[in-house]
Amino acid sequence: MQIPGPSAVPDRILSAISQQTIDHRGPDFAAVGLKALNGLKTIFKTEEHVFIYPASGTGAWEAALVNTLSPGDRVLMFETGHFATLWKKLAEKLGLKAEFIEGDWRGGADPDQIEAYLAKDTSHEIKAVCVVHNETSTGSVSPIAAVRKAIDSAKHPALFMVDTISGLASLDYQHDAWGVDVTVSGSQKGLMLPPGLSFNAASAKALNANKTAKLQRSYWDWAEMLGPNQTGYFPYTPATNLLYGLNEAIDMLHEEGLDNVFARHARHGAAARAAVRHWGLEVLCATQGQESGVLTAVKMPDGHSADAFRASTLEHFDISLGNGLSKVADKVFRIGHLGDFNDLMLVATLAGVEMGLKKADVPHEEGGVQAAMQMLA
Amino acid sequence: MQIPGPSAVPDRILSAISQQTIDHRGPDFAAVGLKALNGLKTIFKTEEHVFIYPASGTGAWEAALVNTLSPGDRVLMFETGHFATLWKKLAEKLGLKAEFIEGDWRGGADPDQIEAYLAKDTSHEIKAVCVVHNETSTGSVSPIAAVRKAIDSAKHPALFMVDTISGLASLDYQHDAWGVDVTVSGSQKGLMLPPGLSFNAASAKALNANKTAKLQRSYWDWAEMLGPNQTGYFPYTPATNLLYGLNEAIDMLHEEGLDNVFARHARHGAAARAAVRHWGLEVLCATQGQESGVLTAVKMPDGHSADAFRASTLEHFDISLGNGLSKVADKVFRIGHLGDFNDLMLVATLAGVEMGLKKADVPHEEGGVQAAMQMLA
Amino acid sequence: MQIPGPSAVPDRILSAISQQTIDHRGPDFAAVGLKALNGLKTIFKTEEHVFIYPASGTGAWEAALVNTLSPGDRVLMFETGHFATLWKKLAEKLGLKAEFIEGDWRGGADPDQIEAYLAKDTSHEIKAVCVVHNETSTGSVSPIAAVRKAIDSAKHPALFMVDTISGLASLDYQHDAWGVDVTVSGSQKGLMLPPGLSFNAASAKALNANKTAKLQRSYWDWAEMLGPNQTGYFPYTPATNLLYGLNEAIDMLHEEGLDNVFARHARHGAAARAAVRHWGLEVLCATQGQESGVLTAVKMPDGHSADAFRASTLEHFDISLGNGLSKVADKVFRIGHLGDFNDLMLVATLAGVEMGLKKADVPHEEGGVQAAMQMLA
Amino acid sequence: MQIPGPSAVPDRILSAISQQTIDHRGPDFAAVGLKALNGLKTIFKTEEHVFIYPASGTGAWEAALVNTLSPGDRVLMFETGHFATLWKKLAEKLGLKAEFIEGDWRGGADPDQIEAYLAKDTSHEIKAVCVVHNETSTGSVSPIAAVRKAIDSAKHPALFMVDTISGLASLDYQHDAWGVDVTVSGSQKGLMLPPGLSFNAASAKALNANKTAKLQRSYWDWAEMLGPNQTGYFPYTPATNLLYGLNEAIDMLHEEGLDNVFARHARHGAAARAAVRHWGLEVLCATQGQESGVLTAVKMPDGHSADAFRASTLEHFDISLGNGLSKVADKVFRIGHLGDFNDLMLVATLAGVEMGLKKADVPHEEGGVQAAMQMLA
Repeated sequence: MQIPGPSAVPDRILSAISQQTIDHRGPDFAAVGLKALNGLKTIFKTEEHVFIYPASGTGAWEAALVNTLSPGDRVLMFETGHFATLWKKLAEKLGLKAEFIEGDWRGGADPDQIEAYLAKDTSHEIKAVCVVHNETSTGSVSPIAAVRKAIDSAKHPALFMVDTISGLASLDYQHDAWGVDVTVSGSQKGLMLPPGLSFNAASAKALNANKTAKLQRSYWDWAEMLGPNQTGYFPYTPATNLLYGLNEAIDMLHEEGLDNVFARHARHGAAARAAVRHWGLEVLCATQGQESGVLTAVKMPDGHSADAFRASTLEHFDISLGNGLSKVADKVFRIGHLGDFNDLMLVATLAGVEMGLKKADVPHEEGGVQAAMQMLA
Repeated sequence: MQIPGPSAVPDRILSAISQQTIDHRGPDFAAVGLKALNGLKTIFKTEEHVFIYPASGTGAWEAALVNTLSPGDRVLMFETGHFATLWKKLAEKLGLKAEFIEGDWRGGADPDQIEAYLAKDTSHEIKAVCVVHNETSTGSVSPIAAVRKAIDSAKHPALFMVDTISGLASLDYQHDAWGVDVTVSGSQKGLMLPPGLSFNAASAKALNANKTAKLQRSYWDWAEMLGPNQTGYFPYTPATNLLYGLNEAIDMLHEEGLDNVFARHARHGAAARAAVRHWGLEVLCATQGQESGVLTAVKMPDGHSADAFRASTLEHFDISLGNGLSKVADKVFRIGHLGDFNDLMLVATLAGVEMGLKKADVPHEEGGVQAAMQMLA
Repeated sequence: MQIPGPSAVPDRILSAISQQTIDHRGPDFAAVGLKALNGLKTIFKTEEHVFIYPASGTGAWEAALVNTLSPGDRVLMFETGHFATLWKKLAEKLGLKAEFIEGDWRGGADPDQIEAYLAKDTSHEIKAVCVVHNETSTGSVSPIAAVRKAIDSAKHPALFMVDTISGLASLDYQHDAWGVDVTVSGSQKGLMLPPGLSFNAASAKALNANKTAKLQRSYWDWAEMLGPNQTGYFPYTPATNLLYGLNEAIDMLHEEGLDNVFARHARHGAAARAAVRHWGLEVLCATQGQESGVLTAVKMPDGHSADAFRASTLEHFDISLGNGLSKVADKVFRIGHLGDFNDLMLVATLAGVEMGLKKADVPHEEGGVQAAMQMLA
Repeated sequence: MQIPGPSAVPDRILSAISQQTIDHRGPDFAAVGLKALNGLKTIFKTEEHVFIYPASGTGAWEAALVNTLSPGDRVLMFETGHFATLWKKLAEKLGLKAEFIEGDWRGGADPDQIEAYLAKDTSHEIKAVCVVHNETSTGSVSPIAAVRKAIDSAKHPALFMVDTISGLASLDYQHDAWGVDVTVSGSQKGLMLPPGLSFNAASAKALNANKTAKLQRSYWDWAEMLGPNQTGYFPYTPATNLLYGLNEAIDMLHEEGLDNVFARHARHGAAARAAVRHWGLEVLCATQGQESGVLTAVKMPDGHSADAFRASTLEHFDISLGNGLSKVADKVFRIGHLGDFNDLMLVATLAGVEMGLKKADVPHEEGGVQAAMQMLA
């Protein structure tokens, strides 16, 4: 499975989630809950609270907004790609006024444009700035620390919310040091779990906003979680077996070392791009330094259907490439290199693409795999 | 584990959920999704739609309300016990006017009182009647078909919503034949799964109400699900591995036969009550014919702490009894006999209770286990 | 499963054996092999060598003999029951002269008879004395330390071999302190593993005998094992995944504490016998102090078929009782209480037997379960 | 893991072996046993009997000999490599007179030499001809059908025994059609299981020889197996959980189709050799048409240590190559492509070797991976 997530779940994690479910109100559960809640802090790099939802990432997107905002609030978002667009639609559906800084889907969010936009909002009507860290539809990474600086330069009090559903635990991420107020993430990418858990990390400022935020909420309400979480419990039934897996994943990440995990993904991104360029194809992310180590989106040559190529490659080489979404549908395919991925798995993936290009008669220069191997060896 | 849920997860299901996660957008997923969606219909006994949420049961409670109601709507609920009370609080938190017919926690919902209450609402301001089928805090079962008749007798157009989180797949339940509009359920009781999935079954009338309902919703919105579900897919990332388990559970229930499953639980409930009565203790459910086959709540003799007894029994016999909740805290303990449970597991559970009563010096007549065995043999 | 073995395999062990197989010649294997080899010493209570065979217990019986004896050697065995008889037949098949002290299958080996027999062998033609520790066909335990004393009293140099296939890790066993030369055991009883591994523990005297023993051997030959075992390896491909399980089992036994394990089985044996006697049935083992804590064999009342009773009990209560073997075929049924077994499992088992007696119209006094509970509480 | 076995165990099989152990004497076991016994016949392509041992492959080697031969019997073997040599030593240890036709380890057994050797044995003192089908130490395949013809041409009555421990279920094998009398195999190669099971397939002639063969045997004795096997049972405790895995493996092989499995391995062998030759290295098997599809042994350039190269490659690219054994120790490394192996896993393996050659400064032409991809695409 080489699509950009869900990532392949390592055997250790599959084994962990297949342990017998224990009573989530019983005395033994506290250790499970506390390990998960505290362990996640080390992954988000935060001293603040991390909330765990039995829900997919879409739920954590919603949670971030309904916990901190009120109906009609203005929210600034940046169009990095398909997932930023979906988050904007969700905000609108919740009754927020979501405003987009448009983007060309070929890079991350632009701090300068954000600063300029905020500077014009002298009455501070904008209540939140929402940015996608790793845009899974394009393979571009937004410079989160720089966006923080932009907000500060504009002296704007808006909350800063970041979606790192596909970035966390693959790319460096620092909730506290980067001054993020709400971080949204999920289980099935860098954390290498099956889908079913999602997360909010919240700053003191965000927790404070929660007290006056008027959007309707119950399941997502942070206020209900804080008390039980102190002792490792949850206000409603948690997804116990996925928490077993989460705890195993946190151990695995620390055994390898987060910095090693990040370096591995950076190396794989560079090798994948070397192959793509050798083939004579174009990487969708056109902004140097913002290419993702999690996945590489590749533009299909004109006159060729990316989806037809993906189908052919799946059939002949059993390799599943990500599809182009909405604006880039059928024009792009995506190579995932996330989660529990090593050098040889990357070579195998690139070999599948190269053999697929040949099989589908897509014009290309052979030898991309060899080019990637040069980078890796 | 003998608490009233989560039930012990059978090995077959643990094995199913530990299979490798597949791409929830890929071609192989359709079969998984369709089997789950269609299989659930056979469990809810409905030809209508069943929605699957990656969420705990609390989420499905919320979903039932936000999909069909508007802010300020009046909702009639019946105080069967703790969980009915929690559902009422949730309704209030969402901005509904929830009204309780008070109960003594010793039986299910009373159709006559419901009919009388609705009859007075001549202007049909009440938009929904909400009843808990199997009240996990008391071990009482509401007569759902009779409540439907009560609503019809009152010629009242309110939607009929039923929580059978702990009843489904243990007690007979008929979404269509009983005229329920929204049924709420979850994965971790009769379906024998780990927690993390919950469900709404919706009638045509409920789906119609969804079109005009004004409560804020996004994650829970049925409207987004209907389209993708047609082909076995979901609008956002499903909890794939729990779906594997769900499909295995559906197979297991049909292999045994739903009627056999129901008969088994009925027999276990009767045997458990025989033991309790032999001990000289009182079953909390005082309404004949409404005692649950899923769990048996037992009143502690005056002057004895139910929680101290539970702690002692856990320590000495490794058996986990359910605690009394809110109004009956420390006054009641609950014996679970749900899910994948057989005669000998019931005997073992009752033996643990009887040996626990002795160890904790709770006055009782010995021989309750033998009395239960008489019923079972 | 309540037969006297294979015992129910705990989830922890099933999970361990489902880990990916590693290269048994690679560097990571050493830790697995050494943990198993050294860990077993703590279970056999020996400082000597323990040999691990990818084989069932029958193989370890053969290994004990072919490694130490020569064609035509005389061997003294004691007829404790069916398994002692099988071991004797195996010895004869290998070309040894096996001699039986006959027994009535109602107790363990008798040290006095052994001493008397050896005393007559003034020319020391008898090369080995072979005794079954826990005779699985009868539920009797031989007094191993006393047999050692008997051999010593007779001043006889024969090797002392003990089969504790079903006793090890359930009953106290001390290879070194009791002066045993070769101990034979297997994986699927007290070690709680699936079948597929078996063992020989060998004293220095036995290892010395190996050098001159003339029976044909290759697969079983200790001499080939000793070298590779020093560093945790094996001369041929080991059953790697079962070794994973073995290491987990050794951890589990030490977590509970071997003495606690032994006490638990002793208590279960006493409670089982209390039930049997209350029913008015007879325990096969008639020698006080030699009743097994691993299983209890029960004599069927005259005129009743034990096998018909067993079949009926399996059908109606899903409980699998052990059958009577050879001399006691159809006259005895056996209740297993070995391995990972707790008080409530024992009660459940006894309840199954008692309900089974009722269902099959076997005359008995009701209340045996209650009698057992008296012993346990 | 790319060593030439044990092969990586597929998740389906790991899941199968982690099911609860059932009673090997109980009624449910028959289906498990019969499926294994009959299923294996379809893999060995025989209508005769296949014996299953809870033992490693070494045990099945011994079983083949002790079941059919008598002390002092002459046996003709062919020195295809290390494993043929081990089998010969084992024969000698059992008291047989094993005679070698020497080989250079660069091809399979030579039918012409065998015919010539047998032709000289006019008194028919040679009782068996033993050949290794797929010699795991060299990557050469013996022409089994041609050896059968050679024996027939020599009009020699010797039994024909073949070791296909590493060939079965990867290379075409036809026990009946090729006139083999005893076929030896094991679980951990083409059958994709963990080690712990091994097999003998026996012709009517071999079963007949069993009746008069005088070598000492008990555990391995076919005669004890035949009866119980008729109904799916075994004379001693089988390795139940490995049988679960075996049954799953047989299903997987038939789902893919044996011919497709063979074609896949043939293709992988050809691609691996293309890479090796592109690198400018030499394939150990020098006999055209006898190169193995299971593994490829590669000669290390003079002056370079194969073992140092293997250690470096393991360290840097986490790829485990097989070592050179005895005569070719340190001069050869072996690339495994056995079992559940696909095109991209082969590319990944070859990439690991090529990057390893670079890292270890072994002179080679880059582009071997690309050459293999040409063969595969």
